[in-house]
Amino acid sequence: MDKQRFFEQLQGIVPARVSNQKAVLNEHGAGFSYHACTPPDWVVYPETTGEVADIVRLCAAHVVPVVPFGAGTSVEGHILALKGGVCVDLRRMNRVLEINGADMYTTIEAGVTRNQLDQALEGSGFFFPIGPGVNATLGGMASTRASGTNAVRYGTMKDNVLTMKVVLPDGQVISTGSKARKSSAGYDLTRLFIGAEGTLGIITELTLKLHSYPQAIYAAVCTFPSVEAAVNTAIRTIQKGIPVAKIELLDAQMMKAINLYSGLDYTQAPTLFLEFHGSQAELNQQVAQVQAFAQAHGADAFLWEKDEARRLKLWRARTDAAPAAVALRAGAQLMSTDVCVPISRLSGCIVETQADIEKTGILAPILGHVGDGNFHLTIVIDPNNPDEMARAKALNERLVERALRMEGTCTGEHGIGVGKLPYMAQEHPQAIHTMWAIKKALDPHNLMNPGKLLPEV
Amino acid sequence: MDKQRFFEQLQGIVPARVSNQKAVLNEHGAGFSYHACTPPDWVVYPETTGEVADIVRLCAAHVVPVVPFGAGTSVEGHILALKGGVCVDLRRMNRVLEINGADMYTTIEAGVTRNQLDQALEGSGFFFPIGPGVNATLGGMASTRASGTNAVRYGTMKDNVLTMKVVLPDGQVISTGSKARKSSAGYDLTRLFIGAEGTLGIITELTLKLHSYPQAIYAAVCTFPSVEAAVNTAIRTIQKGIPVAKIELLDAQMMKAINLYSGLDYTQAPTLFLEFHGSQAELNQQVAQVQAFAQAHGADAFLWEKDEARRLKLWRARTDAAPAAVALRAGAQLMSTDVCVPISRLSGCIVETQADIEKTGILAPILGHVGDGNFHLTIVIDPNNPDEMARAKALNERLVERALRMEGTCTGEHGIGVGKLPYMAQEHPQAIHTMWAIKKALDPHNLMNPGKLLPEV
Repeated sequence: MDKQRFFEQLQGIVPARVSNQKAVLNEHGAGFSYHACTPPDWVVYPETTGEVADIVRLCAAHVVPVVPFGAGTSVEGHILALKGGVCVDLRRMNRVLEINGADMYTTIEAGVTRNQLDQALEGSGFFFPIGPGVNATLGGMASTRASGTNAVRYGTMKDNVLTMKVVLPDGQVISTGSKARKSSAGYDLTRLFIGAEGTLGIITELTLKLHSYPQAIYAAVCTFPSVEAAVNTAIRTIQKGIPVAKIELLDAQMMKAINLYSGLDYTQAPTLFLEFHGSQAELNQQVAQVQAFAQAHGADAFLWEKDEARRLKLWRARTDAAPAAVALRAGAQLMSTDVCVPISRLSGCIVETQADIEKTGILAPILGHVGDGNFHLTIVIDPNNPDEMARAKALNERLVERALRMEGTCTGEHGIGVGKLPYMAQEHPQAIHTMWAIKKALDPHNLMNPGKLLPEV
Repeated sequence: MDKQRFFEQLQGIVPARVSNQKAVLNEHGAGFSYHACTPPDWVVYPETTGEVADIVRLCAAHVVPVVPFGAGTSVEGHILALKGGVCVDLRRMNRVLEINGADMYTTIEAGVTRNQLDQALEGSGFFFPIGPGVNATLGGMASTRASGTNAVRYGTMKDNVLTMKVVLPDGQVISTGSKARKSSAGYDLTRLFIGAEGTLGIITELTLKLHSYPQAIYAAVCTFPSVEAAVNTAIRTIQKGIPVAKIELLDAQMMKAINLYSGLDYTQAPTLFLEFHGSQAELNQQVAQVQAFAQAHGADAFLWEKDEARRLKLWRARTDAAPAAVALRAGAQLMSTDVCVPISRLSGCIVETQADIEKTGILAPILGHVGDGNFHLTIVIDPNNPDEMARAKALNERLVERALRMEGTCTGEHGIGVGKLPYMAQEHPQAIHTMWAIKKALDPHNLMNPGKLLPEV
């Protein structure tokens, strides 16, 4: 292929919005994690679905790989350009097209970030509940089936998208669904593209469900004598059907990290961060129940963060937990794990994992969306130390095997990317062939984000 | 093909559980609706996933169509054997394999019916919320992406399945997911097979999410001066984020039908049937709010059905609404419509439709899961009267077009089957090609429930 000619053809589609400058390429070759930078050959900045379709069609004609790019915040190497090609940076597609209060949805372009969406919704009486710990784009969040702290009550991306506009590998544009709240009309393409990590097409527009802003919000911090006691309180809360909005575990090391990073002075002990949404009456009841469970597990009294400023500071600190952990060690990088198990297995899984961390001698504060059975080790590593990398990877591998043995999954919310590829066949020994059949049917030349999600079999 | 030899081969797999008797074939050739009986050539009654796999493999080898069959209660002709072949009746796969209270799930075989599941869960403290108006099997409910009266609060089948066992068109068996509450590991096959109407494989086992039985349940009946007033009360309730468990519309004619059929004496006027789940405090608050909305729309006071027997009688009558409508006219049959629109369009859609019904001169009581924007006309027809059938079909067609114009869907919960095939291309003009690509990839010889869900394009 004549690269110069191809570059000119890209310019024909998005004039002055194509780059092959090294700095720009490198900026698009590394995610928010330890994976080695693997830059694309070109970066384009489309502004419309039509432009994305034209780019994809051109790439298909020249058999050039296409890597969709949101905010570059994924942690499993989703945006590495393993086979070069065109990186489609969607950040200029950042218009909020409609906020429909009567039907409780918003339609946005895929490059809108969650912070931007939060701002756009301010004063509307509605909010969008899904929030990973970074300012990701909504297209990226859909592509990794993201969730975050509110998922325990409001579900994940798969539960909060009505319909999407998607550019297929051949450049065709489809709507995956309608704006009705439910439908039984055909295969659920919305859910198929959510979590597909850009391997089946590029999401360019999303219609998201909105939720009424709660009448009241309480946030609380609760310190426990052990991680087990904290987790068991969470388990009991879920099993009793109490609709907590957030129930987050941080171990003692993580508490130390966020105290340092965010200028806080919480007790450095296993802790639950909690949030309750509802009417005053509902909150009183929920709080009384959870407090009783916590006390039964030897917890201190709840520390309330009722006023909005303190509440936001608390959750800001929680959001910043990953960088806070990384900041514990100069020059280090993040390797984040992400298993999810049935809730009754969570306590056992975390306790075994803690013992394993200790034995491995690696710095790995624990963080968990424990209401979902989902937790992370924020492994703080020196990527230039091969021995340490090997030990960290082995720790992660044992963790995944533990989770799978406990009928869980190798990733609750981060996705497969390249980092979790080795575990796909273990988790889906038969289903992986079905996934490949779908991939080959929609993307026969393997041009859409190649080398991600599906390992060679 | 040697039919006798094939019959013997089936017997080799499921000895004494194969039939080619006319009465049995006919029993399996008609759904719960007006579609003409189209029987299969053989009916088999497997008892294990292994047997289903062997049957499907045999059929694949001989290029024989396969039609999965649950309770035969679908209303769009899903189980008609349009190209003959083997009907796989799953009713002998009716074991409840596990009720796991700690992880709030149950694993069941696909032939378990919702009434059977309700009984199995009695006393466990948990319930499964999805209930269509018939005693369908859970496999069938998954296959049509069923919902019912509780969907407004608890979601539909797509929201309440953790993982499934599926026999693919080549006889391979896959698990679609894990028992974790969430996962980002690969394509969402669970959601792909939910709503696929047996066209991609046969669901043989399901792991379903369970919900804690509410502390208290209130049910109420509320009479309105007009359908519009009732619908607007429902719209307001939803827009205010009040988590009603059920909010069902019945028009005056439907109230007449259920009074006659179920021996009740409710006012024959547009009515909402409501149910509230929660703690005492939550219920008091929810009820006060909805009552205020209803009063503002000119409603009578709530008639409470608080004790369990009366409450169950109320919902039994609601469940029996379709047969009640059919019973209004001797020898008649049901043609049920099933559109769903964004909630703000619901009132307009129903009012226009009422005017259309009147002009058409057809008996068509209205029934709606109005909290979802979903409603049905239970058209009561004489299938032997071609003029009447033509008018009913035209009425349905206009209704679908109205819903699509209002950004809705041609089916909220019944599915496509054969009855809704004409509307698929209208609703999914581009996406239908993606659906066909998936179908061809997984079922290249079009053997799984052929002629359903996807129209020829």
